[in-house]
Amino acid sequence: MQALVFDGTLQLRELPDPTPGPGEARVAVRMAGICNTDLEITRGYAADASGATAHARVLGHELLGVVDRCDNPAWLGRRVVGEINLGCGACERCDRGLAKHCATRRVMGIRDHAGCFAEYVVLPLANLHEVPPGVTDEAALFTEPLAAALQVLEQIDVPVGSEIAVIGDGKLGLLVAMALIEHGARVTVLGRHPHKLAIAGGLGCSIARGDELPAASFDRVVEATGGAEGFALAQRLLRPRGTLILKSTFHGETPVAMAPVVVDELTIVGSRCGPFGRALALLQRGRIDPRALLEARYDLDHAPAAMAHAARRGALKVALDLREGARGLAAP
Amino acid sequence: MQALVFDGTLQLRELPDPTPGPGEARVAVRMAGICNTDLEITRGYAADASGATAHARVLGHELLGVVDRCDNPAWLGRRVVGEINLGCGACERCDRGLAKHCATRRVMGIRDHAGCFAEYVVLPLANLHEVPPGVTDEAALFTEPLAAALQVLEQIDVPVGSEIAVIGDGKLGLLVAMALIEHGARVTVLGRHPHKLAIAGGLGCSIARGDELPAASFDRVVEATGGAEGFALAQRLLRPRGTLILKSTFHGETPVAMAPVVVDELTIVGSRCGPFGRALALLQRGRIDPRALLEARYDLDHAPAAMAHAARRGALKVALDLREGARGLAAP
Repeated sequence: MQALVFDGTLQLRELPDPTPGPGEARVAVRMAGICNTDLEITRGYAADASGATAHARVLGHELLGVVDRCDNPAWLGRRVVGEINLGCGACERCDRGLAKHCATRRVMGIRDHAGCFAEYVVLPLANLHEVPPGVTDEAALFTEPLAAALQVLEQIDVPVGSEIAVIGDGKLGLLVAMALIEHGARVTVLGRHPHKLAIAGGLGCSIARGDELPAASFDRVVEATGGAEGFALAQRLLRPRGTLILKSTFHGETPVAMAPVVVDELTIVGSRCGPFGRALALLQRGRIDPRALLEARYDLDHAPAAMAHAARRGALKVALDLREGARGLAAP
Repeated sequence: MQALVFDGTLQLRELPDPTPGPGEARVAVRMAGICNTDLEITRGYAADASGATAHARVLGHELLGVVDRCDNPAWLGRRVVGEINLGCGACERCDRGLAKHCATRRVMGIRDHAGCFAEYVVLPLANLHEVPPGVTDEAALFTEPLAAALQVLEQIDVPVGSEIAVIGDGKLGLLVAMALIEHGARVTVLGRHPHKLAIAGGLGCSIARGDELPAASFDRVVEATGGAEGFALAQRLLRPRGTLILKSTFHGETPVAMAPVVVDELTIVGSRCGPFGRALALLQRGRIDPRALLEARYDLDHAPAAMAHAARRGALKVALDLREGARGLAAP
């Protein structure tokens, strides 16, 4: 099969088709989304959003595909998305359903498990979720990042009608905004890109630049930029006893003014992967439609160009499209 | 009156005796504790544990004294301790009882309100708590920092019997350890000073050096050093989804690895001033006895020497003692 491989350089390679083991499925990839984490792996960052540190050979963890080989025939032909963390299955955290926090987890496309920027990917059946019939491929493609966005609501209480700020108008920031708007919060998105802020505005969010808002305006702020500047802005916007949700991975050491955290008795909550089931349910009911975030599709032959596109400043979601009709897709 | 004043240099000065206004009391100081914040003010740090930024003229905020002038005769002669934050009394935060988070608060000895390293200090009656008869002066002296230690239990749930680590064997770390032991937690104190760790051991705490403990050993860690190293150690000791309580002020920008906060979905909780009533009740019932932390007493004439003593590496609590019998006290 063809696959996008990173081992210091990024290149398309011909690899053997993978074979699923017991309890696993082989998924024929239909679409795969490019995430900032993929870009950061190619930039050599050690840590990433999954908590993994080693580089994968085959990149990719935002998967939509069809099960094409499996020892459980009930799964064959099903359209699926896949959770990215593969726990050891034997430790106390895996027992509690916290495979994403298993100390020896593998992570699809990120650590010790081949990713989905390829014709096929193998995952445990336990990681798969069938996509409901009414959900388009393009919407289902967002299941993984939408689940990550929804994780905010799993971790903190956001009363309906309450105000919350989202710092960052990137893909993840906008998905968080969608999740919060759907939940019934009053959302202000802070960003720098007019075309992205327009999407936020279309969702019903207020939009602003950080310097336009007075200090101590919010009890809850989601930081979705992963930068020290975003962290400082979040601190400035929070009221005493407010909550800051870190929804994006920070690389290396971030110089942070911790005194205001103590003085204002802030709470900071790190937030990572989230509930696929809830994401799919919201997509099925049409409560969230992330398709406006899909900026471009490329076929697998043009995967390196797709990565370059995704790396452009201000780019929204770029996807690999391996479906029949997508052959030759090379640009928006 | 005599007072210890800092205005770029530290010196004893003769100042006019203060006069209480309506709703205020003048307190004749009996003892006053020296806190790291006092030392840090004299080192020119801008931010401090109270959230204040301006320097005080008269230092000191750990107060024990007797009301000697007041328009409410019921308070006259009462032995009192005093809360340090003076809210505006008119804003929404003050309305909610959160004067310590009032945006325009004054802070005794720290911001815009004269402190208690003096013969007299004036405070609003609302800030005073009478010390119960059974509590010695030496124990009551610890009310303010003990209240700050108890704030941990106001902010996070610590199940009885659960394990919790306290990083730092300084005064605040040991008071936190006392509060947690009294609460019924199993406490491990990490520090570097054998004589302080011995106090922790005497309380029933386990004691350790940070590098002796395996990673991911605790669900709850209290950081009581205010240093980047303590922060990093706390991160290392926490299990995924664990909670880190910041109980000491960090000065300036601290280089922090934020990726583990996100990846491990940690919660960080800043923690400042706490409940005086609860502290006094525990002192009264003898549930906590902080007197082992009192290392030295100096009379007011020797206040600069007391400050120098408190600044020694490894020093425990140093107090000013203004009681009759303490005249001439100049060293431990």
